[in-house]
Amino acid sequence: MADILKNVSIQLQREGEKPLYAQIAAALKEAIDAGQLPADSRLPSIRALAAQLQVNAVTVVNAYRELELEGYVWSRTGSGTYVRSQPAGETARQIFIPHQGINFASATPTPEIFPVGDFKRLLNLVLDRDGGHAFGYQESQGWPPLREAMQEYLGQIGIAARLENIHIISGAQQGIDLAAKILVRHGDTVLVESPTYHGAIATFRSRGARILAVPLEPDGPDLAVLTRLLRRHRPRLFYVMPNFQNPTGYSYSRHKKQALLDLARQYEFTVVEDDHLSELHFAPAQDRGPLKAMDVHEQVIYVKSFSKILMPGLRLGLLVSPPPFTGAVGAAKQYSDISSSGLFQRTLDLYLREKAWQQHLQAMRATYGTRYRTALEALARHLPQFRLTPPGGGLHLWLQLPKGIDGDQYCRLCLREKVLLTPGSYFSPNNSYADHIRLSFAAVTGEEITQGIELMGKVLKQIHAPRTLQPLL
Amino acid sequence: MADILKNVSIQLQREGEKPLYAQIAAALKEAIDAGQLPADSRLPSIRALAAQLQVNAVTVVNAYRELELEGYVWSRTGSGTYVRSQPAGETARQIFIPHQGINFASATPTPEIFPVGDFKRLLNLVLDRDGGHAFGYQESQGWPPLREAMQEYLGQIGIAARLENIHIISGAQQGIDLAAKILVRHGDTVLVESPTYHGAIATFRSRGARILAVPLEPDGPDLAVLTRLLRRHRPRLFYVMPNFQNPTGYSYSRHKKQALLDLARQYEFTVVEDDHLSELHFAPAQDRGPLKAMDVHEQVIYVKSFSKILMPGLRLGLLVSPPPFTGAVGAAKQYSDISSSGLFQRTLDLYLREKAWQQHLQAMRATYGTRYRTALEALARHLPQFRLTPPGGGLHLWLQLPKGIDGDQYCRLCLREKVLLTPGSYFSPNNSYADHIRLSFAAVTGEEITQGIELMGKVLKQIHAPRTLQPLL
Repeated sequence: MADILKNVSIQLQREGEKPLYAQIAAALKEAIDAGQLPADSRLPSIRALAAQLQVNAVTVVNAYRELELEGYVWSRTGSGTYVRSQPAGETARQIFIPHQGINFASATPTPEIFPVGDFKRLLNLVLDRDGGHAFGYQESQGWPPLREAMQEYLGQIGIAARLENIHIISGAQQGIDLAAKILVRHGDTVLVESPTYHGAIATFRSRGARILAVPLEPDGPDLAVLTRLLRRHRPRLFYVMPNFQNPTGYSYSRHKKQALLDLARQYEFTVVEDDHLSELHFAPAQDRGPLKAMDVHEQVIYVKSFSKILMPGLRLGLLVSPPPFTGAVGAAKQYSDISSSGLFQRTLDLYLREKAWQQHLQAMRATYGTRYRTALEALARHLPQFRLTPPGGGLHLWLQLPKGIDGDQYCRLCLREKVLLTPGSYFSPNNSYADHIRLSFAAVTGEEITQGIELMGKVLKQIHAPRTLQPLL
Repeated sequence: MADILKNVSIQLQREGEKPLYAQIAAALKEAIDAGQLPADSRLPSIRALAAQLQVNAVTVVNAYRELELEGYVWSRTGSGTYVRSQPAGETARQIFIPHQGINFASATPTPEIFPVGDFKRLLNLVLDRDGGHAFGYQESQGWPPLREAMQEYLGQIGIAARLENIHIISGAQQGIDLAAKILVRHGDTVLVESPTYHGAIATFRSRGARILAVPLEPDGPDLAVLTRLLRRHRPRLFYVMPNFQNPTGYSYSRHKKQALLDLARQYEFTVVEDDHLSELHFAPAQDRGPLKAMDVHEQVIYVKSFSKILMPGLRLGLLVSPPPFTGAVGAAKQYSDISSSGLFQRTLDLYLREKAWQQHLQAMRATYGTRYRTALEALARHLPQFRLTPPGGGLHLWLQLPKGIDGDQYCRLCLREKVLLTPGSYFSPNNSYADHIRLSFAAVTGEEITQGIELMGKVLKQIHAPRTLQPLL
């Protein structure tokens, strides 16, 4: 019975201040963190553990529930409770549960940075003010006062949008889905940057699109390749992230932004701009700002995420459509999910109108600016062999490995040291970038950054050391 | 200046208890309700009205804001504030704002029925318990404890689903979108009931599907037509609402449910079952229950909405996939909106585990059962010429008009009496059902039902009266 726990000591203090369930949960967490309970191992049944520890079954239920809440275990009714495996590499499915290791793979700020207190206060304010109306259907295009608040916000980042072209969406991923729905028909050609965000590729593929990749340079797309592809394939759209791109961190120069808009006019395609990080800049730069701010001929669908700079759980984003697309975007939104949450829209409306939002942005810039500089310093010290173009903002560093080092293999070796990284191949629409990795500093502390990059340096030495002694098999 | 207000009297009590802004708002609402301020008319500018009434501009801003909040007006920055028009007929875009008229067009229960108090309490409980984690990304497939709660709920309505096949989705419309994404390729044939819900047709059309309609009879689809279409067109899927269908209110007999499942096996198509009302039954019936409960061969994708029986603003629903589709559904969910709101999922989890939920369902049945009987009585009294099959549940009555009466025209005439109805043509994939209308009792009180149906009787007499005197032009 409960063989799995044979190496695990659970000492309960029955007269202690800490509830019994919390003591059990703490002991199991410790065992999981220490590797004594490996991934996918099954915990004892509630009945069995209760008998073993001589506690009430409800106590074990509560302990397991806490473990599940914190992402340590996973339970299936009728089957049991299992230790959750550590996710490796980034997938859209991945929700990193920071119970062990140093996570340079997650691109999402960790919950302690979220302005939960402000949102809790405002949620209650909205519920007191609007009651059930906050839980009704919302206009598909969005709660009008929030759209006004968004208009003001857009103005601050240089985008003069008319209210009727502003749509509230359920996160930026939905914005990509909506753009695909209104623009992409079966067999159409879609351009993406290379490397790029895999979640966009999946959306375009689902519409039956043929996807072609435009190599990304540190100042924007390779214009020669872009022009050649445009001439030959007449694509419907080009999906771009002109600021602090994922995964490279690169930002387009003003020159390349203008060139892209000129080409869009000449070759009659729509640019879908994904902006999830443009506010998160740590250094002055002349060329900064959304492409949409320069879009005088209305060729850009602008998709704005608040998941990284605010918090992902709101599932709210923003789409600005060129006027001819406004009706189609509204219809596509309706048949996708009817409307986004009215309660969250009303709450975000109040939040954007408060000073707290500007303060939050400043705090984000300060926090991540420090982490960014810490990462650059540690890389210069422990991994001078790695090449990168410092992006000056965002959450990602795109590292080119020394010749002969494979990114996938390197990431696997780092994982053994409990350092999570994302291999470059993950972002490639055409299986390139095997010599790159992405290091994201969204979900790591300064200390973890220093420690993790030091470990990465050791891993590199381990790879290099044997190779100098013995040739490749 | 402010010509539009020349017929409107705004008398302010400057020493009264009611704030000035609320007095202004109340006067304007009264004027809008009374038709003194017609739809689309522009309200005076804030500056102009403030000057005219000798109040602070902020007071007018607040008054206009209240009007907007309650759906009386619509404002565009830089352009002004306009009286909102009364929506006519149901569109997915339509958010009915019940400030005038009797609304038999809305299919959505009104906010005073929503369990707002319970949700507010549980929202705060979750925020205190989980903090920022409630605002992080959630697993794409859904918050595991909620999926377990859903599994239990499914068991109560006869569906034995395995946990790994249960997906939390952002409302039933997304369920239809996901089913379309995984099943429908460009050029595929999709079957729908006729009449049916237009929002599903839009989704299938967007995937490039050819849509064919199967006539719906009071006990289910016309099996002869269905078999003929299956033989000839080999469709990918058949979208059905086997319980209290929208718009007819019809429910499938057990015989037709089984026949449909047999045909699905024989002709290898997937059934997409949209269940938004099956719990809302007012009379005992032998054949009741989801089609999915009989789906022993795993041919049904089950999509469950909580928008009507709970509240729409949560934007949460449930999808049960046959095992072979589970991976594809998960991927499609990811590239559609990554995940549904973690905060609402955690709150709904707690709610479903409380007795309050069963009590809410019972209250819904009692409230709507009474309205249903009121509607049937009033129809028998004032409109015996209309034919209907009493559905015994749901929120809709499907009324066949006397010969020679056009549904669109009748709805227009009723609208003049401020009675909103939805013409049958609205639900037709092939321009039929001109002789039907849908009367929904979701958003009307018992008094409104009696009064509205009496008005409908008067309208019918007005149509019939001149026709006996003078022939058609």
